[in-house]
Formats: sequence, structure tokens, C-alpha cells
Amino acid sequence: MPRLRIALAQTNSTVGDLDGNAARVAEWTLRAAEQGAALVVFPEMMLTGYPVEDLALRTSFVDASIAALAATAQRLDADGLGGIAVVTGYLGRRTGLPPRVGLPAGAPLDAAALLHDGQVVVTTAKHHLPNYGVFDEYRYFVPGDRLPVVRLPCPAPGSPGDAVDMAIAICEDLWQDGGPVAVCRQAGAGLLVVPNASPYERGKSDARLELCARRAREAGATLAYVNMMAGQDELVFDGDSIIVDSAGRLLARGPQFEETLLVADLDLPPADPALAPGETPADAHDGTTITIHRLTLPALEPLPADPGQAPGVTWPRLSDPAEIYSALVTGVRDYVLKNGFGSVILGLSGGIDSALTATIAADAIGADRVHVVLMPSRHSSGHSVTDAEDLAKRQGLHARTVPIDRMVDAYEAELDLRGLAAENLQARIRGMILMALSNSEGHLVLTTGNKSELATGYSTLYGDSAGGFGPIKDVLKTVVWELARWRNGQAARRGETPPIPENSITKPPSAELAPGQLDSDSLPDYAVLDAVLGDYVERDMGAGALVAAGHDPALVDRVIQLVDRAEYKRRQYPPGPKITSRNFGRDRRLPITNRWREPHPAEPAG
Amino acid sequence: MPRLRIALAQTNSTVGDLDGNAARVAEWTLRAAEQGAALVVFPEMMLTGYPVEDLALRTSFVDASIAALAATAQRLDADGLGGIAVVTGYLGRRTGLPPRVGLPAGAPLDAAALLHDGQVVVTTAKHHLPNYGVFDEYRYFVPGDRLPVVRLPCPAPGSPGDAVDMAIAICEDLWQDGGPVAVCRQAGAGLLVVPNASPYERGKSDARLELCARRAREAGATLAYVNMMAGQDELVFDGDSIIVDSAGRLLARGPQFEETLLVADLDLPPADPALAPGETPADAHDGTTITIHRLTLPALEPLPADPGQAPGVTWPRLSDPAEIYSALVTGVRDYVLKNGFGSVILGLSGGIDSALTATIAADAIGADRVHVVLMPSRHSSGHSVTDAEDLAKRQGLHARTVPIDRMVDAYEAELDLRGLAAENLQARIRGMILMALSNSEGHLVLTTGNKSELATGYSTLYGDSAGGFGPIKDVLKTVVWELARWRNGQAARRGETPPIPENSITKPPSAELAPGQLDSDSLPDYAVLDAVLGDYVERDMGAGALVAAGHDPALVDRVIQLVDRAEYKRRQYPPGPKITSRNFGRDRRLPITNRWREPHPAEPAG
Repeated sequence: MPRLRIALAQTNSTVGDLDGNAARVAEWTLRAAEQGAALVVFPEMMLTGYPVEDLALRTSFVDASIAALAATAQRLDADGLGGIAVVTGYLGRRTGLPPRVGLPAGAPLDAAALLHDGQVVVTTAKHHLPNYGVFDEYRYFVPGDRLPVVRLPCPAPGSPGDAVDMAIAICEDLWQDGGPVAVCRQAGAGLLVVPNASPYERGKSDARLELCARRAREAGATLAYVNMMAGQDELVFDGDSIIVDSAGRLLARGPQFEETLLVADLDLPPADPALAPGETPADAHDGTTITIHRLTLPALEPLPADPGQAPGVTWPRLSDPAEIYSALVTGVRDYVLKNGFGSVILGLSGGIDSALTATIAADAIGADRVHVVLMPSRHSSGHSVTDAEDLAKRQGLHARTVPIDRMVDAYEAELDLRGLAAENLQARIRGMILMALSNSEGHLVLTTGNKSELATGYSTLYGDSAGGFGPIKDVLKTVVWELARWRNGQAARRGETPPIPENSITKPPSAELAPGQLDSDSLPDYAVLDAVLGDYVERDMGAGALVAAGHDPALVDRVIQLVDRAEYKRRQYPPGPKITSRNFGRDRRLPITNRWREPHPAEPAG
Repeated sequence: MPRLRIALAQTNSTVGDLDGNAARVAEWTLRAAEQGAALVVFPEMMLTGYPVEDLALRTSFVDASIAALAATAQRLDADGLGGIAVVTGYLGRRTGLPPRVGLPAGAPLDAAALLHDGQVVVTTAKHHLPNYGVFDEYRYFVPGDRLPVVRLPCPAPGSPGDAVDMAIAICEDLWQDGGPVAVCRQAGAGLLVVPNASPYERGKSDARLELCARRAREAGATLAYVNMMAGQDELVFDGDSIIVDSAGRLLARGPQFEETLLVADLDLPPADPALAPGETPADAHDGTTITIHRLTLPALEPLPADPGQAPGVTWPRLSDPAEIYSALVTGVRDYVLKNGFGSVILGLSGGIDSALTATIAADAIGADRVHVVLMPSRHSSGHSVTDAEDLAKRQGLHARTVPIDRMVDAYEAELDLRGLAAENLQARIRGMILMALSNSEGHLVLTTGNKSELATGYSTLYGDSAGGFGPIKDVLKTVVWELARWRNGQAARRGETPPIPENSITKPPSAELAPGQLDSDSLPDYAVLDAVLGDYVERDMGAGALVAAGHDPALVDRVIQLVDRAEYKRRQYPPGPKITSRNFGRDRRLPITNRWREPHPAEPAG
């Protein structure tokens, strides 16, 4: 059986940074070469980053991506790496199609190419275009209609005459039935490589493994799935690359939330010499025809392997809180650094939300780049200050105090503010102080609101919602506590000081905008609230379904009203990392002007 | 030739308000009946409003829409209007399809139905789903695959045995080649009715007339196009309903930005008695098959016509500034009223942006519901106060003054702020005052920024960008001036006091955040800037194309940099009415984290 050493480059790509991304392809191909790999596979849209959104419609950008692909092939060859087969994603173009409204004349493609010997040997494009959740790919791309099957003369010294057939499909082509993957068995490919840019969602890695195993069995091929490892605005790509054999058995698996080269030796069936190069149309079982495009590479010439690393590693999986926490850290780090910020600033209230946000930031970019501001008012409790000071001290954050009473007084001298207006005033003064310090000193302001608050509108527009990035925007309050406990436990297990003061975790939550105020004055108990929010927001259940699922009808009514009325606030909220199946961002698109009220749970619909 | 009296109900529908929209169908059908119409056509998605966005994915909402449709048919019959044929849009469902990721089991349809005699006689659905610009219809709907052709026994007294064949298509089906409209001629329909929810864009009404005329000729049928008249978040539907005969000649046309019943007597070819009811598949010339679904209604029974109104009116077209201004007024009015606000509040600086915004608001909801706040600082010029006072007095707005120096001092006592930080502080204090008054008194805050500022980031986050709705968000600065002059001219033509002080129009623009500051210190001349913005933002030209179009290379470079860097600010900006082909909203979707820099105009791409 021929043996092929493959390297999956689970790398970090930056949207729009064609030069940087191309350099990374060269750098990681060299690293793969040093480990003796004959084939290196990069993620979907590696050269452009993902998602590029409306940049896909910009002719200059598509031109530059295609030019970068050709330049990368030449550069690899010039670097002495031309003998290695490299598969990478890029933004491509298809000409000759009838015009489609909204697309430029050369229709954009979510493409992948095989580079070898200084050439772009073959290209293909994603066939299934996701257009749900956060994805809008019908807006940008036309579908691919082929499956390249490339014969790779096997480089193993023990089997000189052998070759293997490798097919290429892209991301969503794995998730949906029919299309290129459906014709893979018929094409006789022994290996299917799949570049991905698959965003993290809680629990998704289990679904990925199951999916890869199922598709490998369907295709009768070893399947090598490589995923990007990066944060991009609201999305976090978690790596978690996977290799399974044709029986669906796991052969190797990359880490979550770490850049890695996943190297493995694959024993693959020899290519059938009767299958000649050429094009064969095949029924793709989704109403379309996929052309199997068969071609042969000249011999691969891998470099001699550095015997240091044993290929075929399977990294351990992270626990549920560990993977969520890592996603948040990755999202914050990449947002801060890729946008050119050297530091962040946030308000510290002594409560759990700002404590967790500060801890995530310190883990993401280092405590010395995290600035915190205590902004006490006459309603602030003693523990709000001491807990915040304790947190800053435990982690070595840059802390300062700016009392707000003087500013409150200045507004109240001009305006007669009571109740909600007076409460919001305090939150907005704090937001303004952070923005002023950001303007003066160049920090990115982090917003500390959680998903339960964002859902119910329990936050002040331009107040606690002010900022450039919201690390825990997609984290329900109950999960905020869980993550804080997990992070402290992790520190304890490592023999380190737990970063978060215990009192911030255990005390009853309060906005401290009025005397003796508690969240529980305005909101249901968070455990009960979050259960309804999970079903209403993340599972899109209507009122009837929520009651049928066992939630209290009056509570359902109240929560739906709160969520629906707060849509306008969410529109002006900064982005933050998505960790659930439905975040408040491009995942959930509702009108602000909306008179629909879910039928009262006691009444039938209609 | 049979004659049919048709009424196009160019009405205002509200998203989610099924009861209110259904009541409006009943009310307007009665009005049409009083004018002797035998057929009434309502806009696309009339019963649900448009666009419903992710409400389409909510099973409870689709259930309610379908129930509302049946109830409407019954109600019309109960009201004695069962003898009239009524075509209306609604949110429907198609069962039995294979599951599609992201859609509920019963796939949503952008549907239309014919109601008669208390029954839903036939339904159909939009075939071409727009998924570009502001549209995301692949996300929500599955395509329709039929063309209903309904035989309407002609009710004209002079031709008792006659009947006409009426086909139904929906909105985008008119804009794209192939599909239901392509089989209309083959189906032998003498009349094609087309419900629409077509958003206003500057100059679009010319395109609509040309399109209707072309499709009518292709179909060989009289074409009756009815469009919604409503504001919905960022979209404004401008009415402008059109009837053209089979030679493409205009027969009648509704007004822009006014609700109207457009009534016309149509002389139509008699239906071919050889064409029997049933279903016939036809090649739709877009790679799909459309089933022609032919059926016959029992006799229509229109009510006797009130002889008051002569049918077949063609309203005059508005001038370019008049139609833009009307779009802004409509957008503001519907956003304010449909969201339940009784009043608005905004800051008045004496400059043209806030002056125009206040004038639009007063025209939209009445001067007595418009509150303005003068917020002078030590940098405010004398004319900033006098011009603002003059404007408030001319229009009878509720004006008050809240000086900001005391608040500025309170911040500066705690923080050492200079330069941009000190400038932004003033803008944010003003934003906070407006938000505090909104919280206290219940007004909606209007944001006064124009598109040139929003494009270049020449605004302060949480400062002048604070608010719930931005009336001139999609209006370039040069157009702001043009609209102000036009509005004053309109007043003069009517013998009224021009609402805007001349000095606000003619003085050089300044943010007045620093001594002697002028916009021209930071930005190119607006005439030059707006020309580049039009090409870069609205026409999506890259740097090379901009220079080729004659823009100065250095200016192009600078403007692109300003626009690209301000993306994060735009994400937190409130919605505002779209008037161009590319607004800063769902029309233009770019990543915040984005290292792509258009190649310098002097250099070749790549």
C-alpha cells in the first residue's frame, strides 16, 4: 500500500492581508517540508482570509488574490519547495457565465488550487454555498461544478511504482449531501482533502468528527480535514483538523485554538492505472452534474524528514468551559492585534462580567497591555471597589480610579434627571470616560456586557455598551459564572493564584446605578432566564413551543417582550466572538420596526 | 374587447402587524369596490409587511400569516366583497421538499394569493429570489415554480360572454430574465398583475417604467405593477405603481410616496376558450420548468361604481430633490410612528445637517412633535446659536438650550484631555444630553450625520452619532445642501417662510469642537470628496478604476483610507433611510478586521 506523508497547516490567516498570508503559506510549507511531508494542505480562502464579505465583489481584490496565488506557486519553487504538492484556498473567478445581478462580470469563486513545480496545476471551487446563520455565500459566489482528482506518484521509497489519487472538496461540500463528495467514490479517489474555514460553536467539534467519519465511509477514502485557526470580527475558527481513514477511524487530530502543523503518514490504496486523465461528468445526487477532472502530477520530491517529530498525533479535546474560554481568548487576541491595537481598556465594577472580561483580555494579550478603570459613584458599594482592586492586583493590570460624582453633578445641575434617566447617566459617564482614555492613549475599549443582558436590553446604549469589541457578548450570565469558576480552578490546578476574586463570583449581581439595586429587581433569576433565552434566541422557538417545553407561560411572555423590544440596542452593539449556534450578530436578523408579538402562550396561534 | 376595472392598492403595510395589515386589505378593498373595481391587487407580503427577515424562519409567524390570509378571505366575503377578486402578498409555506439547512421543515415562501368568494382560490410564490444589495432572500425562501393563470369572467355589461386571463408574478420575477414572466405569453394571459415591495433608490422609477414596458411587450400582456408605500427600518417603498399595455404604453401611474388606490379600466383580449383549466409544464428559459396553472373563477360581482373618480390617472413625477426629500420624510415618519414614538429630539448646531434633519422631522410628524436642543460650548460661534434659534422659530419647534461647559469642566477636572479626545468629549456630552432627555421625556433621538461624514469617519462614536434613527445617513453633504435649497425654494413657491435660515446653507461647515475649526481643515472640499465617495462606495470602484475615471490619485488614496478605517464606526450607527444604490447598512458589508489596502493608484494591482 502506498504511503504518503501529509501535513495539514492549521494556520491563522488575516482578511485582506494577501502578502502576509502568502508569506505564511511559504513559511508553513517549509516547516512541513522539514518534517518530510510530500503534500501540504492549507485552509479555505487561506490567501485572502475568511470571510472577505463584499471584498469578493471588488474586482481589484479578486485580481490581487489570483495574482498572489500564482506568485505563491513561483515563490515555493524558488524556495526549493516546488517538489511538494500544496493545496490552498483562495478567492478565484469564473468567466463566461451569464451575468448575475449583484456579481461582477467575472463571477467570484470560493476556490482552492493545487500548486506544484512553480505552477497552479488545477483549481476548483466550493459547490455548496452556505447561506444561513452567519453565512451569505449566495451573495458572493457562484458554485463550483467539478471534483479534481490528482494522481500523486507515491514518494515512499518502498513502493516506487505506486501512486495515489487525491480529490479536493471545500468546507460546506462536506456538510451537505450530494455534490463533489458524492462522486468521490465513483471517481476512485483514495484520499479526499478538504480545506475549511469552519467557525467555532459550542459542541461543534463532536459534530465535525462524526461528519468526517461518515463522509469518509461514503467516499471510501481517507479524509483529511484542515480548518483555519483565527479570529475574524465575530467569528472564531478553532482549528480542530481531523484525519479519518476510509472506515471512519480517527487517525490524527489537531488541537483546538492553536496553530499547528498536523503531520501524518497515510497508507492509501494504489491508484487504478486503468483510470486515465480527462473529464467525466457524474450525477452528483443533488440535481446537478459534477465533472470529475482527472490529472497526473509528475513525481513529488519531498525533502528528507527531520526525525524529530512523530507524525500522526491526536491532541486531547478541551472540556466545554475550556473550549468556550479559548474561543473568547482567540477572538479577543485576533481582533485586538489584527486591528493594530497595542492595548485594551475596560471599566472594572467589581462584578463578574468585567472581572471575566479583564481576565480573558489578560490571557489574550498579556496583563501588561490591559488597562482597567474603577469609576465609583455614590451608589457604589464598598466591595465593588475592593473586589475590583483585588482583581487588578491578582493579575497585575494597569488600574486607575476616576470617580464620577463630579460629572453626575454637572449634568444634574443642567437637567432634571430621575429614575432610568439618572441610572443611564451614570453608565454613560463611565462609557465616555473609557472612550476619552481610548482617544487619549490609544487603547481599544472592551465592552463587558453578557448575552443575557444584551438579550433583555438590560444595558445602557452608549453606556456599558460603549466599546469596540464585546468579549462576552455571546455568553449567557450562567455561563459567565461557569467560565469564571473554571478559570479559577485551572489556576488552582496549576498552582497559580486564581485570577478572579471569589467574592466577584459569589455576590448577587447588581448594576449599582441606584441605592441597593440588584439585577433580580428587574430580571428573573438568571438560571431560569437563560434557559428561556437559550430556547427562544438560540433555538428560535415560538411562545407555544416554549410553554410546551416546560417554561412558565408568564415568564415566556415577559422574556419574549424584553428580547423583542431590545432589538434596536443590539444593532448598535460592538461585535464580539460567537460561541453559540445563534449569536446576536449576522446569525439573527430581525427587523427593529416589528409589531409581531408571539401569541400569548395561553392562546392558540393565529 | 372585454373591459376590466382594476384597482392597485398602493398601501402601507407594517412588519409583523398581521391584524392591522389584514384590516387594511379589507378597508382598501371596500374603497376599491366603491369605485367599481372587479379586481384589487395589493403589494408583495402585504399581510406580513416586508422584509420580515428572520421572522420568516419562525413557525409561529408563518402559521399566523397563513391563518390571516384565510381569515381575510372570509372577512371580505362577510363584508359583502366576496364577488371581487383580490390578489395579495403574504408569507406562505411549501411542504414536502427535501430539508434545507437553515430553513424550517415547511419551507417559507414569498407568496401571493387570489381571494374570492370567501376562499383562497390559488396561491403562488416568487420564483427569482434576490440575494444582493439589501436582499437576503435565499436565506428565507424557496423559489416558486408556477404561473397561475386565472380566467376572470369579464364583468363589463357590454360583453356578457367574455372573460380575460390574468397571470400573477411577484416583484423580482419582473427584474430577472426567465421564470414565470417568460412563460406568460405562452400561457396566453391578457393581463399580468405583479405585487411588489420594491425599495426606493434615486432614479429607480425611470428604470421601473422601462422594465414594465419591456416585460409587457415580452409577455404580450397588459401589466399592472403595484408597489408598497411604506418605510421599514432602512428601506422606503415609494409606491409609483404602473400600468402599461401590451405594447408598453403607459396607461396609469400612481404617485410617489403617497398611499393611493390607482384605478383603471383595462381593455383586454378575450380569453381563448380552447385553453382549458389544468397544469402545463413550460420551459422557463432560466434552466427551470414553470408549471402554468390554469383555472377559472365564477363570475365576478363588482359593486356599482361611485361615478366620482375617473379611473386611469397618471400622477406627475417628482423632481430629483423632491423624490429624495419625500423618501426621507416617509422613512422618518414610519420609523417614528411604527415604533410607537410620539415625538423626536435632536441637537441643533446652527449647521446645515441638523437644520435639514429638523426640517425633515417637522415635515414627517409635525413641528409640535419635534424637540431641539441647543448645546453651545466655549467653541460655539455666535451664528451657531442665532441660526439655530432662527430655524426653531421659523418652524415652531420646541427649543431649549443646555450649555455644556460645566460638564466639559467636570470631565477635564478628572482627566487630562487634549486634541481629538477633547473634541470628542464635547460631541459625547451632547449625545448624552439628548439621550438623557430621551430617557426622561420619551422622544426618539434623531442623529444628524450625513453620508460624507459617515463614509470618512468624520463623526464621534456615541457623540453626534448617538441616536435611534439617522434621517440623512445616506445623503452626501452636497445633496444635503441641494435638498435644503430645494425645500426653501418649495416654501417660497408656496408663499411660505423658507424653513431653513439662509446662513445655515451658505456658511462654511464646521464641527465647532476647537477654536476656528472648519471641516475643510480635515476633509477635501465636499464637491470633490462626494464625487470620489459616489464612485468608491456606491459604484464599488477600486483605486485603479477611480484614477482612470479622472479622480486625483492622492485624493483617491486618502479617501479610500478614510473610508476603510471608519468601518467600525458605521457598525454602531443607527439605521436611516436608504436613498442610493448602496447605503451604509445591509447594502455594503465589509469586514472590520481588514488589511486589504487598494493598490496605490500609481502602482499596478497585484
